Amino acid sequence: MNTSGKARAHTNIALIKYWGKADEALIIPMNNSLSVTLDKFYTETKVTFSPEYTKDTLILNGEEVKDDQAKKIHRFMDLVRERSHTSQYAYIESVNYVPTAAGLASSASAYAALAAACNEALQLNMSEKDLSRLARRGSGSASRSIYGGFAEWEKGYDDETSYAKSIDAQGWEDDLAMIFVVINNQSKKVSSRSGMSHTRETSRFYQYWLDHVDQDIADVKQAIEHKDFKHLGTVIEENGLCMHATNLGSQPPFTYLVAESYEVMDIVHQCREAGYPCYFTMDAGPNVKILVEKKNQQYVIDALLESFNKEQVIASDITHTGIEIIK
Amino acid sequence: MNTSGKARAHTNIALIKYWGKADEALIIPMNNSLSVTLDKFYTETKVTFSPEYTKDTLILNGEEVKDDQAKKIHRFMDLVRERSHTSQYAYIESVNYVPTAAGLASSASAYAALAAACNEALQLNMSEKDLSRLARRGSGSASRSIYGGFAEWEKGYDDETSYAKSIDAQGWEDDLAMIFVVINNQSKKVSSRSGMSHTRETSRFYQYWLDHVDQDIADVKQAIEHKDFKHLGTVIEENGLCMHATNLGSQPPFTYLVAESYEVMDIVHQCREAGYPCYFTMDAGPNVKILVEKKNQQYVIDALLESFNKEQVIASDITHTGIEIIK
Repeated sequence: MNTSGKARAHTNIALIKYWGKADEALIIPMNNSLSVTLDKFYTETKVTFSPEYTKDTLILNGEEVKDDQAKKIHRFMDLVRERSHTSQYAYIESVNYVPTAAGLASSASAYAALAAACNEALQLNMSEKDLSRLARRGSGSASRSIYGGFAEWEKGYDDETSYAKSIDAQGWEDDLAMIFVVINNQSKKVSSRSGMSHTRETSRFYQYWLDHVDQDIADVKQAIEHKDFKHLGTVIEENGLCMHATNLGSQPPFTYLVAESYEVMDIVHQCREAGYPCYFTMDAGPNVKILVEKKNQQYVIDALLESFNKEQVIASDITHTGIEIIK
Repeated sequence: MNTSGKARAHTNIALIKYWGKADEALIIPMNNSLSVTLDKFYTETKVTFSPEYTKDTLILNGEEVKDDQAKKIHRFMDLVRERSHTSQYAYIESVNYVPTAAGLASSASAYAALAAACNEALQLNMSEKDLSRLARRGSGSASRSIYGGFAEWEKGYDDETSYAKSIDAQGWEDDLAMIFVVINNQSKKVSSRSGMSHTRETSRFYQYWLDHVDQDIADVKQAIEHKDFKHLGTVIEENGLCMHATNLGSQPPFTYLVAESYEVMDIVHQCREAGYPCYFTMDAGPNVKILVEKKNQQYVIDALLESFNKEQVIASDITHTGIEIIK
């Protein structure tokens, strides 16, 4: 008898970055991280277990992914089977709802949706904590996509203690938005996985990162508590830049940023100078994400559209919604 | 009666960077810096004072520089007149001996040569210390071009106490060379003057720079004393990257580095991995300078020539020679 479950999970953007693993196999991070979950970008995944399947199959955006490119998924499904005591293989249909131009294929929403779909299909009755722990094993940042709004991934020290929690922002999420600036001039591709590993192992500035990130987390939580947007923005902007500075200290150094990334940072600065507070953050690529209060969103978008085209500028609300089961 | 003097000064490259002024007008730096003086790049300047001249005239590489573009030179000549109690204007002929492609027009060698030529023309009998102080007023890094070999600019605290000194390297300079990699893909132009000022005023990482640079100076001096090339290289590479990391923390952030700069850093790293120690440093532009022991110079040049063309790769010895009077 086949059993199936379907779930939706939204992607999240780290405001305090996850950068470096303490345990590569279990995906235990070196530091806590903190994110917002976005309304506009999400993954829907249906998983069906059957005693008749002879292997796991992944259909991504309507196309079958070859086995040798789906090894991470296969390992993840092994973890699911361990936790459920089933031995059945699965047929996984996953669709990413992300604007094509954005190039934001997100393993965060993907593994959160997959974990939730498996939980539903196999009736595992996992708690959010356990879903977060499971999703973490697929992709560290997926641990945070279990929740809407603000979430903090507490690093913990082993598989049991490393998971994300929701942060109560008293509805402040509704006042905020994030604007993506998609930069086509891609820099040399370095995955976040290999980038953070290289940096943690070789960067002369990595200790500085570790020395400051706990305070950044504490500051952000205080800013959320007081709904203090300027404080929040100042801290997250510095934290993101610090992550990129650690990459510059790696041996050899590398960067995810290109000239256009700096151009966006300039525009953000000009908007602030003009009295429209907004703050940028960048991840393992040249795209820039801008956190802004909704009331100022249009001003910032207009400023960006003077230098970038419409397809490159994508705004999203913050969503309150965490993983959802789709019947 | 006309009086004239002619002098030559070599350019220098900071191994421990000068980045930030404590006094903008007097050019007192925030930190000590340390350099090597290069054989291949220099400036020759002849200065002639005459009671008949009605203004200072600058002929640079055979072409007269318009007055509005020579204001810095005019202010510098005013300082010379103050120190000499002459009121005569000067005719200044200056030639930069720098490969055209290199784009290394160096204010360091220019002001050092000009200071020395004025000293000669006016028979001021200035000590090296006083020449360094005077050259500093034209361009901070010029204070170090008074000397050959290694030189340290001691920051001091006022016009009197801020000047460079020679460091005795017991002839070790003869074993070393510097390779320039000239990168044509110029990044957005930010002068070192405005870059360091912006960074000192706004960078979140500037304090980190200040907290570490004294130790870097001490480490480099120890490495020179022990002729320990790997120690020297490790420290200078980190110091240079730290300077560039401070730029990333500026508001708004900026960078002097482009994709090709990182490509060179990769090659340097590969040479090291292959057993040929060499270390990079970058200043206020995308070019990369590589410090190498002469015995390994050809290996590194060959490695660079696999990715860059001949005009882009220029090697220079370190010179023992400081400013020279040309009769």
